Amino acid sequence: MLTINGGRLLARLQSFAEIGGTAKGGVNRQALTEGDRRARKLLAELAVARGFEVFQDPVANLFLWRKGHDATLPPLLIGSHLDTQPAGGRFDGALGTLSAFEVLESLEDQDVQCERSVVVVSWTNEEGCRFSPGCMGSMAFSEGMIPANWGDKVATDGAGFAEELALTIASLPEVAMLPLGFPIDAYLEVHIEQGPSLEAAGIPIGVVKGIQGTRWLDVTVAGQTAHAGTTGLAWRRDPLHALTAALSSLYAAVMPGDPDARFTIGRISAEPGSVNAIPEEVRCTVDIRHPDPGRLDEIEELVKSRIGQEAESHGCRAQFSRVFDMPPCVFSEPLREVIKDAAAVCKVESMPMLSGAFHDALFVNRIAPAGMIFVPCRDGLSHNEAEHVEPSGIIVGCEVLGQATLSLLEGRFSVADQSD
Amino acid sequence: MLTINGGRLLARLQSFAEIGGTAKGGVNRQALTEGDRRARKLLAELAVARGFEVFQDPVANLFLWRKGHDATLPPLLIGSHLDTQPAGGRFDGALGTLSAFEVLESLEDQDVQCERSVVVVSWTNEEGCRFSPGCMGSMAFSEGMIPANWGDKVATDGAGFAEELALTIASLPEVAMLPLGFPIDAYLEVHIEQGPSLEAAGIPIGVVKGIQGTRWLDVTVAGQTAHAGTTGLAWRRDPLHALTAALSSLYAAVMPGDPDARFTIGRISAEPGSVNAIPEEVRCTVDIRHPDPGRLDEIEELVKSRIGQEAESHGCRAQFSRVFDMPPCVFSEPLREVIKDAAAVCKVESMPMLSGAFHDALFVNRIAPAGMIFVPCRDGLSHNEAEHVEPSGIIVGCEVLGQATLSLLEGRFSVADQSD
Repeated sequence: MLTINGGRLLARLQSFAEIGGTAKGGVNRQALTEGDRRARKLLAELAVARGFEVFQDPVANLFLWRKGHDATLPPLLIGSHLDTQPAGGRFDGALGTLSAFEVLESLEDQDVQCERSVVVVSWTNEEGCRFSPGCMGSMAFSEGMIPANWGDKVATDGAGFAEELALTIASLPEVAMLPLGFPIDAYLEVHIEQGPSLEAAGIPIGVVKGIQGTRWLDVTVAGQTAHAGTTGLAWRRDPLHALTAALSSLYAAVMPGDPDARFTIGRISAEPGSVNAIPEEVRCTVDIRHPDPGRLDEIEELVKSRIGQEAESHGCRAQFSRVFDMPPCVFSEPLREVIKDAAAVCKVESMPMLSGAFHDALFVNRIAPAGMIFVPCRDGLSHNEAEHVEPSGIIVGCEVLGQATLSLLEGRFSVADQSD
Repeated sequence: MLTINGGRLLARLQSFAEIGGTAKGGVNRQALTEGDRRARKLLAELAVARGFEVFQDPVANLFLWRKGHDATLPPLLIGSHLDTQPAGGRFDGALGTLSAFEVLESLEDQDVQCERSVVVVSWTNEEGCRFSPGCMGSMAFSEGMIPANWGDKVATDGAGFAEELALTIASLPEVAMLPLGFPIDAYLEVHIEQGPSLEAAGIPIGVVKGIQGTRWLDVTVAGQTAHAGTTGLAWRRDPLHALTAALSSLYAAVMPGDPDARFTIGRISAEPGSVNAIPEEVRCTVDIRHPDPGRLDEIEELVKSRIGQEAESHGCRAQFSRVFDMPPCVFSEPLREVIKDAAAVCKVESMPMLSGAFHDALFVNRIAPAGMIFVPCRDGLSHNEAEHVEPSGIIVGCEVLGQATLSLLEGRFSVADQSD
């Protein structure tokens, strides 16, 4: 059984929370910003101080390498991400990355001899809020390439993806480069649930069965701008009138009609955006989630038809583009057993569950068995500065990750078990 | 009868349309921007070239002065504004300002001897889109002071009002300052109707009886941001869900239920504005118009109660601030007669009408008799780059302004007639 240093882990979480820390106690450390670069630098420095090798790859994924005796064995990968939402919390991502690093340090503390290398990873841009889509780092790693169209992406703050990526890689000049994507034995990630189930059930560990599918749409409704005071109803082609009518009916239809569905409008704007002018054009994003791919299609169709009909009936035109589409995923059954057993060894209760959020593990799962360990967060609150995890919950999650890591190193599991 | 130079007026309109001209043939020359300063500078230069005196006041209103023989008589003021909407047209404001200047030049061309000075004015920030409220220039002129809170105003583009005002005044260093507000005999303004009535009736001149009241509200609905994928309906406090439900019902209630009412949402936004986060807070503007002050109150109450109820039922809080409130106004009866007679002298049809938009004349009307001459614009379209006025309509409008100016100078009208 691996003994972890809980005090050290809590202290690390605090010091990373101060990088991009907000007045309300949250964190704004969006992907590929200066704050993100500072967090990567700190993690790299901590690793070097412990004698681990540090690498990055062309999409700025960061790897902290604890060498095993047999360099021919594909390494065991553990970790998460360090980027956050604009008004994010201190645990979404950082908890998994720093728990993994704590495991790496504990292996070193206790001089655990391993045939297989253990590698902590911090994936680039999991959140996808500054540059869409999310999970760029794990996606590029699993596909072994960076999609061509990413180069042209521009952040909501005007920054270009290519430039910010180059700056981020250049910010760690002493860190050697690895090619994009390499063989791994398996991947484990600790993450906050970002939902209320574990807290409600009073169970400290969730063994994640899989992840619901996610689709993101960009919606544009174009009408005709005109004077707010002089233009009578008959002459109006108001795209915001059309969009609010459609959204209002969609809010009422989608989630109330299907407890597994998620429907969220996170961004909305009107151009030219003048108090006394009917908008010429309005835009919004749509985030749809569901564990069933068929229902994802149905909900996307409903969104398009409702908005399309309202646009038409107001003399406007609606356009839709699907900017992100992630099918539901099912995690490795044998790995789930390893996590369940690890919780038992740590003498804590665990329960199987679905993930409402997508995670880097979803993409890694396409090239190697991946598994996730969820810990409860207060009120299920996440993507929020008030995001909170109890210290005891943080430590239990890390202990289970440590135990599961040991089991995998001791070969109680191998890729051979992974058939589906 | 004053003969105006139609070709010169059309040429002037073209050269001003090129200052801030957009690819679509419109104009983006928002108040107190560099473009606005360039337009003021050109107008001042044209005036100096014709031997008129030029002045500005502490709110950057620009005055072009044709001296009469009796300096003790309060001058006759004619003009409009030069600022535009972000995606504005080339006639809203510029038409009235340059028609007034054409009248001034024609008086000069024909060496018309006047006891009373005639002054062309270009008012500052009539549109109110970059710095709210609109009509700052005429408002400050009529009140003889600049409201203290204007100094702190920040534009949607981040610029400060005080700084931009100072830069604008400093951009004409050779132009002498006048104190804010001085006695005037009367005020006349030519403007496009910004509505479809004149075009529909086939009548070239509208004699404006008055202006409907306008209210602007800033609305904020605060909820709780949370993860789009993990947060079930029961845990959501989504302010955009609340706001779209309320707006959708208001769109359906206000204008369909009252043909004289205008209800417009020109600006809407969500914070933090992330595709996969429920918004923490949403904001929108509300523009309400009505000729009846009582109905303005009723509609404002309806807006507050609908949004307030929806916010409450979604666990959110709504806040409202009234950022602009302009009661309906009635223009000088004798001045309306002067304009009607002027149209008759010019042998063109005119009709009395209400203005759907507010104008600087509304504020000037509080300190002196004011009147407005409307000309038709294509499809009633305004606050739009496609805004268009037929050349013949432009010339007729200027001729009627010229004739009305002559009548006033010849003393067929005096402040004594103005009792209400």
